[in-house]
Amino acid sequence: MQKAPWVTYRPELKVLDCTIRDGGLCNDHAFDDGFVKAVYDTCVQAGVDYMEMGYKASKRIFARDRFGAWKFCDEDDLRRIVGDNPTSLKLAAMADAEKTDYKTDILPKKDSVLDVIRVATYVHQIPTAVDMIKDAYDKGYEVTANLMSVSVIQEPELDQALEVLVETPASTIVVVDSFGALYGEQIEILVKKYRAAIGDRPKEVGIHAHNNQQLAFANTIEAIIHGANRVDATMGGLGRGAGNCPMELLLGFLRNPKFDIRPVYELLQNHIVDLQKKIEWGPLVPYIITGQFNQHPRAAMAILETDRRHRYVEFYDECCE
Amino acid sequence: MQKAPWVTYRPELKVLDCTIRDGGLCNDHAFDDGFVKAVYDTCVQAGVDYMEMGYKASKRIFARDRFGAWKFCDEDDLRRIVGDNPTSLKLAAMADAEKTDYKTDILPKKDSVLDVIRVATYVHQIPTAVDMIKDAYDKGYEVTANLMSVSVIQEPELDQALEVLVETPASTIVVVDSFGALYGEQIEILVKKYRAAIGDRPKEVGIHAHNNQQLAFANTIEAIIHGANRVDATMGGLGRGAGNCPMELLLGFLRNPKFDIRPVYELLQNHIVDLQKKIEWGPLVPYIITGQFNQHPRAAMAILETDRRHRYVEFYDECCE
Repeated sequence: MQKAPWVTYRPELKVLDCTIRDGGLCNDHAFDDGFVKAVYDTCVQAGVDYMEMGYKASKRIFARDRFGAWKFCDEDDLRRIVGDNPTSLKLAAMADAEKTDYKTDILPKKDSVLDVIRVATYVHQIPTAVDMIKDAYDKGYEVTANLMSVSVIQEPELDQALEVLVETPASTIVVVDSFGALYGEQIEILVKKYRAAIGDRPKEVGIHAHNNQQLAFANTIEAIIHGANRVDATMGGLGRGAGNCPMELLLGFLRNPKFDIRPVYELLQNHIVDLQKKIEWGPLVPYIITGQFNQHPRAAMAILETDRRHRYVEFYDECCE
Repeated sequence: MQKAPWVTYRPELKVLDCTIRDGGLCNDHAFDDGFVKAVYDTCVQAGVDYMEMGYKASKRIFARDRFGAWKFCDEDDLRRIVGDNPTSLKLAAMADAEKTDYKTDILPKKDSVLDVIRVATYVHQIPTAVDMIKDAYDKGYEVTANLMSVSVIQEPELDQALEVLVETPASTIVVVDSFGALYGEQIEILVKKYRAAIGDRPKEVGIHAHNNQQLAFANTIEAIIHGANRVDATMGGLGRGAGNCPMELLLGFLRNPKFDIRPVYELLQNHIVDLQKKIEWGPLVPYIITGQFNQHPRAAMAILETDRRHRYVEFYDECCE
């Protein structure tokens, strides 16, 4: 038993930046190249392990001209930012179950600058996700399984889903608190459950937290304490709705000397301050309310677009129903 | 061992609102009567147990005309808001060691609408604090001991201070993270230490968290898990610098049916939204940085008043030195 474990570090703990991917949900993935490049450079300088560039969304479902490049992560767009990525930063893209033409749009690894495919799935899509995981693995990628909205999954279904996912070639299974509804004690239970399901297989547990109740950073720490070794964060907490675990807080906590927080503050100063004038995210009251009620943030996002944005009591009463 | 302790509640857990007291540090305690009355009414309606109205500051040290009424909490000012306080809400005032003419300014309980005196002390002021605690107790008040800036107290001094404080008539000893520097694991250690020092004496441990690292709510939960039964929060998190544990988050977590979160959302909507246009608080980047370095927020408050407010890297480098 360590006296003060937070003074030390686990070398195997790796950080994934999902600023562009999760942040893209705020602006239909229309970040300009300068910002994407700045996040990329910051990740490299800060010693971040992975950067998620966006989605591999289906062009049949999502019109190419209605969304920015980071909805699709075409190879040309990626390489315009990262070239051949001559760094140790690994690049990831997220592939949503049933919203990705993975067989055609995810290229063989040898033809892509991407290193990792993160397969995002709801619990009712597990068989599709399994197929996607195998497809990406067979193409040569590191693959993760991100089981979304875990706060509304019934326990037998979760146990069943984990039983299936641990048998796939996914090397990480991520605890995803999509609604920002979970308290630390629940995170502890989930991380332990995922670890138990994994057993002695060579897989890691990840954590992806949302900040509705200002718990994204705390829950990320909680997951780390209980053994999560793959950790998501975003610059300035940028992300859908209440946003994510802020990178500047996470790197302040992590003690591995390979991490450097200073470039993150530089990015906040040079880019995030301006972005906050154009895009709104963070634990605003409507997001707190949906988090407390364990609901999807879409109603909060909707009301924030109207002149009812400060009518908290009305919104609270609606969410109660 | 409970399966899901957060679904239940401890009847003995009591909530203290310190919106006006800690928030007063943002505006020299110059809240208008309407706001103070609104907070008071909200506390009553929300089932909050205590409301801290302000300080009992020395008029020799602080000019009466340079500060608002809530720096001094004169009886007339208090009664202008609360009358004879015909409610179950208990009223508190904070008395800072060496900054309070407590012998004269703290009236006998029978002549005051106040119920509680919270004695705030740095570790080097313990003998003065002990005298103040005895004075207030002898005058008929419930008394708490708030040992400030615990994140910079050396362990032998802390142990010594606790050994002295547990022998006083203070009924609560509060873990005070003035700099918002502590992680959950540190809160756990401190709450356990305070409880161990108290032993079987009829005293409670309290928690007063600051939000520099977005951990005020999480650390408050952590303290509750480990037995803290006196819990500070403020409406909208209003408080010096990064602010405090937000009441709207805390009441969303507490399951005692006596608490009602709806009036809090009403106050946020009707008062806090406007106040945010006049006063700035919350986990802004300079406050994150002082929290990470376990420093007083005063340098962050100073830079936020200048046109260097977004020059995060410069500020980070200064705090490093």
